[in-house]
Formats: sequence, structure tokens, C-alpha cells
Amino acid sequence: MPLPVSPLAPARFPDLPAIPGVRFAARACAVRYTTGRPDVALMALDPGATVAGVFTRSRTAAAPVDWCREALRQGGGRARAILVNAGNANAFTGKRGDKAAADEVEAVAAALGCTHHEVLLASTGVIGEPLPAERITRHVDALAAELSDAPEAWEPAARAIMTTDTFPKGASVSAEIDGTRVTFAGIAKGSGMIQPDMATMLAFAFTDAAIPAATLQALLQEAADRTFNCITVDGDTSTSDTLLLAATGRAGNPAVEDPADPRLADVRRALDALLGDLARQVVRDGEGAQKFITIRVTGAEDARAARRIGLSIGNSPLVKTAIAGEDANWGRVVMAVGKAGERADRDRLAIAVGGVTIARDGEAVPDYDETPVAAHMQGREIDIAVDVGIGDGAATVWTCDLTHGYIDINADYRS
Amino acid sequence: MPLPVSPLAPARFPDLPAIPGVRFAARACAVRYTTGRPDVALMALDPGATVAGVFTRSRTAAAPVDWCREALRQGGGRARAILVNAGNANAFTGKRGDKAAADEVEAVAAALGCTHHEVLLASTGVIGEPLPAERITRHVDALAAELSDAPEAWEPAARAIMTTDTFPKGASVSAEIDGTRVTFAGIAKGSGMIQPDMATMLAFAFTDAAIPAATLQALLQEAADRTFNCITVDGDTSTSDTLLLAATGRAGNPAVEDPADPRLADVRRALDALLGDLARQVVRDGEGAQKFITIRVTGAEDARAARRIGLSIGNSPLVKTAIAGEDANWGRVVMAVGKAGERADRDRLAIAVGGVTIARDGEAVPDYDETPVAAHMQGREIDIAVDVGIGDGAATVWTCDLTHGYIDINADYRS
Repeated sequence: MPLPVSPLAPARFPDLPAIPGVRFAARACAVRYTTGRPDVALMALDPGATVAGVFTRSRTAAAPVDWCREALRQGGGRARAILVNAGNANAFTGKRGDKAAADEVEAVAAALGCTHHEVLLASTGVIGEPLPAERITRHVDALAAELSDAPEAWEPAARAIMTTDTFPKGASVSAEIDGTRVTFAGIAKGSGMIQPDMATMLAFAFTDAAIPAATLQALLQEAADRTFNCITVDGDTSTSDTLLLAATGRAGNPAVEDPADPRLADVRRALDALLGDLARQVVRDGEGAQKFITIRVTGAEDARAARRIGLSIGNSPLVKTAIAGEDANWGRVVMAVGKAGERADRDRLAIAVGGVTIARDGEAVPDYDETPVAAHMQGREIDIAVDVGIGDGAATVWTCDLTHGYIDINADYRS
Repeated sequence: MPLPVSPLAPARFPDLPAIPGVRFAARACAVRYTTGRPDVALMALDPGATVAGVFTRSRTAAAPVDWCREALRQGGGRARAILVNAGNANAFTGKRGDKAAADEVEAVAAALGCTHHEVLLASTGVIGEPLPAERITRHVDALAAELSDAPEAWEPAARAIMTTDTFPKGASVSAEIDGTRVTFAGIAKGSGMIQPDMATMLAFAFTDAAIPAATLQALLQEAADRTFNCITVDGDTSTSDTLLLAATGRAGNPAVEDPADPRLADVRRALDALLGDLARQVVRDGEGAQKFITIRVTGAEDARAARRIGLSIGNSPLVKTAIAGEDANWGRVVMAVGKAGERADRDRLAIAVGGVTIARDGEAVPDYDETPVAAHMQGREIDIAVDVGIGDGAATVWTCDLTHGYIDINADYRS
């Protein structure tokens, strides 16, 4: 029985524009699900596209992650296809997992007439069970024949990569490079879990801009640090996290090499907006989530320290359960700042909830008005602001509350 | 209404031996609780005792923690008294908190005729509310008059330092130093929480051995790393964690200076046993705990890496909810090993649950017998063993499961 759609979900899947040079197809391959739902997506890129990737830092990464790293290294940042399946993560599957990935690559390279290193892979689902690659490979020719560049092709692809997500996730944004208008759009999945060993986050973004591979990689890494690397549901890092960005070059903008070039400033902004939107949709689908929490940290030693403090707050079970209980429990925020291990000055710390300062200069504000704070805590969107008081470092982190729904999904489902 | 006693609690408080040179008193001072329950304990040491301390690494440490660090530095490792209250942590209380601590020190020093730096403090309870020190100081003379060295004095002290613990915690052990028999005994509190901003762990241990202060500090730090620093309930580090060990010297053993001296080997063993016992009792009183989990990590790069991997498993909400659901979900253990950030080889990893190997050489064991594993998961005591397969580093970590009870206690209590 499917989970009810998250109360934090957007009203509907957005209208996404076609990206010239990018085509999609999706099919039901019964990798694991026997309901006939689409579970494999093929995303094809016209020749000449560049690609960049950011992957899980897990030391037990899945076979497709290992393959993507290898393909990006060997392929010189060129790609022609991304093949994605749901239902099986092909993680902790040993040499058989590497073989399954190789079989998938072989089938796609043959169908599209490209090299092996131009084929990227992602898998999401159960960990530790061998991936039945033949269930996918026998559909690859049909997938290739069905590829479409119509705007309507986005949503089936976004749905095919879902596991226990309660809604498909997509976003788009436009930008300018040196006077030329370019478009970015992408889809993501994560991070609901019903089958108790599913835990992956995947995101695929595309643009018609012309951006050299090394530049694309630098821009993507930087944007990921401000977006996907600033979200948390439960602090558990997947074996399969994969974020890919492909640039087809069809917009005809002049190529800019230096990622710091001011002509790319608007692209940076657009990438932050696109990936931030997708990342926040993942949080809005967090298991059991009833509230969406934005944590703004200022006054830290630097941006990295601010992010670590924000994640310490966002990962604290005590903070997250307090918010589930609609309790503006700032003592727990103090605790989480303290345990982050970053520089902080107890006597300069300030904390605001819903825009109301509760503590300042290391003490509770005398006689602060609790009424607006209590009202804020009853809403769906919770804002926490922390000023550490020692520097200029700032970061924003997004998370959700920790509820009985999380326990239901992760502990009770099999019992 | 008090919480029911943890299902993992021992049958009763143990019989602890008197430690010559150590006396206890406890009184109801109504620091916060109005039920007449004892909430302040005074622990007095005869002149000549040495003391060592290990404290929270929180950057927002409470005022009593700051004071203890200062007193140990200035007092040359000598102490005459430890004053502890429950109900208010004197944390995030600014300059007023420092003043409250100073008032307590002043009162104890006057009552016992010792210097300020010979008085140590600990407070546990609500964060962010000013500590009403006068409620404590006006009882200090009476506490000093009631000090007792009888074995019966342990339990009232262990009860007085409880906040939302569901049972008092104590342990003892004996050892030999160069042929002389010495005794160690201690009490601890933690880490149940009902009032949603209580989160502290305190432990006080005593011995009649003669051990120089610097040696005592080295032995304590080392034992803490193998015991209290190897437990976790929810990964949230308190602002007040305090572990003190005092040595009265009344056993008459020869003083040994070098902490690595073989004549102290049995003391090391005894300290590991004592502090390990107290630390495991804290886990057995973890909020909502229904199962006690032992995680043994072997084959890591070194002991520190093994502990980090163990804590990554022990802090993973996905692992802890799976165990609550009695599901031997080893895929989540793989994930937690991977996210620890320590060296691991996917293709050498082995995982056993309840003594049954489930995965070996980076793959599920074909056709392993799930029956004994399923039976093990239904018990109160869960054993997980992970061999990382790359070195000789080993560590054991103790934790509990993550249940609806945790959410009830921490989210629902105020609502």
C-alpha cells in the first residue's frame, strides 16, 4: 500500500521546458516491483554534451557510483546516456554487481552507438541483493526507440526513478551567459523509505548551455555544497547518492572556461536555485515529515563551520523531536551548536525562532513574548536562526522533523 | 507521572562498599522539583585525595563544567568536595550562571574549611534557566553535618542526582596495586529525558588507592575513551557531561607515577570494568530503549577508526529503527560503515548478527540460515559484529534502539 503523499509536497509536478539535445524514455522493467510501474529511465544526450558529477562520500559506495567515477575520469567529461533503475541499488553486491553494471553499459552503448565511457548509471533500491541486469538490458533497445524530447517526457522519467518517494520531483530555471539565454532543468528522487533498506538520493540536471566539462564540474561541486550538501533527513549517507549535470551546448552561448568568470555569475545563481529547489523537495518528502525546517547560521568562523553547525542542529534527534512536538526548545539548539565542534562563544550566541529572538548574548532574553513563537511552531514551515557571534561565515541548512511516522516507516513496516 | 522503569534495568541497586575517606549526604532542596525528592548530593573527600576529570567537548559547556576545569588546573589535582544538583543544568545562563557556581563553591568551602579550588561542581537539568543557588547554599551546612561513610550512603546520592533516569546507577570493582588490594566504586546518571531540555550525563567514581593526580588523569582519560566515550543514545552531546574520579590513598599502596607502569595494569582493567558497567547502565536507561545493542568492530585501521565506525552504526537512526522493528537489516549497517569516513574495503567487509555471519567478502552469504538471527532479534540484547577487513583496530560501542518511546518522551510530553 503506498504511503500517503507528504503534507509538505507541492500541489503538482511543475511544467518543465524541453532542453534541446536531451531526450527521455521510461519503461516498466519489473526490476523489483511487480505492479507494472515504470522503474527504468533512459536519458540520452546528443553528441557533444559535457557532463559533471558529484557522488556519495560513502566508503561502501554502490557499483554504479564506482562506474560513474571511472567513466567521468576516462571519458573526458563527455556523455551520451544516463540509465537509471529503481528497486535495486546494486550496492554491496561484490563482483557480481560490477558485472551487472558492465552489462547495462554494454547494452546502452550498443543501442546508442557510443563508447562505454559515455554511458553513466544510477541504481536505487534494496542494498545487498544482486541486480538482475537482464531485466533491464532486454528493454534497452525499446527505450532507445522511445526517446522523446517533448516537455511531457520529464514527468514519466521523474516517476520511474522513485522508490518510496511520495511525489515526483522536478524544477527548472533560466539564466544568461554573456547575453545568451540558457535553460536548466532537472529531476530528483529521495528520501522516503518503506522497504527498510532503501536509502538513496539521485538527481539529474540538464542545460542547453555550452559549458566545458572542467568548468561544469567546478560549478556543480560548488552548487552542491550549498544545496544537496545542506540537506538532511536523518544524517544517514546513502551508498548511492548521485548528482549529474549535463550541458548540451545547443543554446549557442560563447564557451567560458574560468568558473570564476563574471559571465558565469548568473549560471551560479541559477544552479543554486535549481539544485536548491530539488534538494528542498527531497526534504519535503523526508520519512514521516510533518514540518519543513530552515536553519540559518550566521556569525560562524567561515561558511564550512556554519554548515557544520547547521547540520549538527538539523541532525539532532532532540531538536527534531522538539519541533515535532511544536516546542521552541532553544536549549536543545544550544546543545547542538556546542556539539558541532566548531568555534562558538557561549556568551555571544543568539537564537531566533520564527523571527523572534529568544536568546541573546548567551542568555535567555528576559520576558520574551512566547505567543508568536508558539503560533509559528504550529505551522508547517519552521525557521530557526542562530548567530554564533564570532565571524562572518553563513550557511542555510534544510531538514524536517522527527516523528512517529519515521519510526512507523523504518521500524514497523516489516513487523 | 514518572516513566515506567526501563525494561533493560538491573533488578536492584547494587551493594557498594564504603571507600575509606569518602562520605556522602543528600537532601531535598527543591531546586526545581516540588515533590520533596532529594535533588542535591554532597560528596566529601578527606584531606590528601587526588582527583581527575573528563568533561564534555561541547563548545557551549555549562558553568559548572567551566568551573571544574579551572579548579582542576588551579588546585593541582586535589579536591575535598563535589556538590551536585539535579533539576537545573546551570547551562547557557551567562554571567549569572558563573555567579551561581561561585556562590555554591563559597558555601561548600566555608562548611568544609577548604580552598575554593578544592570544591568541584556538577549540575543537571533544564538548560537556559538561571540556577537559584540560594536554594542549594542554604542547605550546605546541613549536608556537611549529615555526611556519612556508611555503605548505605551510596544509594541516596545516586538517587539525588537523577533527573529523568528511571533507575539509580552504581557499580564497584576491586583491583591490586603491587600486592595491595584497592577498591573502586561509583555512581552515574543519564540519559533519560522527560523535561524536554534535560540532557546530561554525570558520573562520580572513587577509590581508596593512592594515585598521583597526573597519573589518575591519564588513567581516567584512557578508560573514558573505552567506556563512556563508546556509548550513545541519540548522538546528542550534553553541555554538562562530567566524569570525576577521586583517589583517597587510604589503601596504603605504594604510589606509582607512570600510568604505563605494569603495576597499574590491574587498575586499568578495574577502571574499564567500573566505568564500562556505569556507562552501560546509562544506555540501559536510554529514552524509550527496548533493546540493548553491543556493536563490536574489528579489522579497522586502528582503535580510533574502529570506535568511529561503531558510533556511526550506533548513531544511525536507520540501524536503530530497524533493530526496534526486530529486523536484521544488515544493508543499513553497510551504509553506516560507509558514512563513518574511515577506511573500509567494500569487498572485505563481514557482518554478523547474534553470532551468525550474514555477509562476508562484501556480499551476502548465499543461503544463510535466517532462523537463529530472527530469534536473536526478538531478544533484549542484540549483538552486531563488523569486520572491516583492513587492519587490527578494534572497539566495542554500546547503544539502544530508537522507538516510539523516544518520540513520546521527547516530542509529545509538552503537547
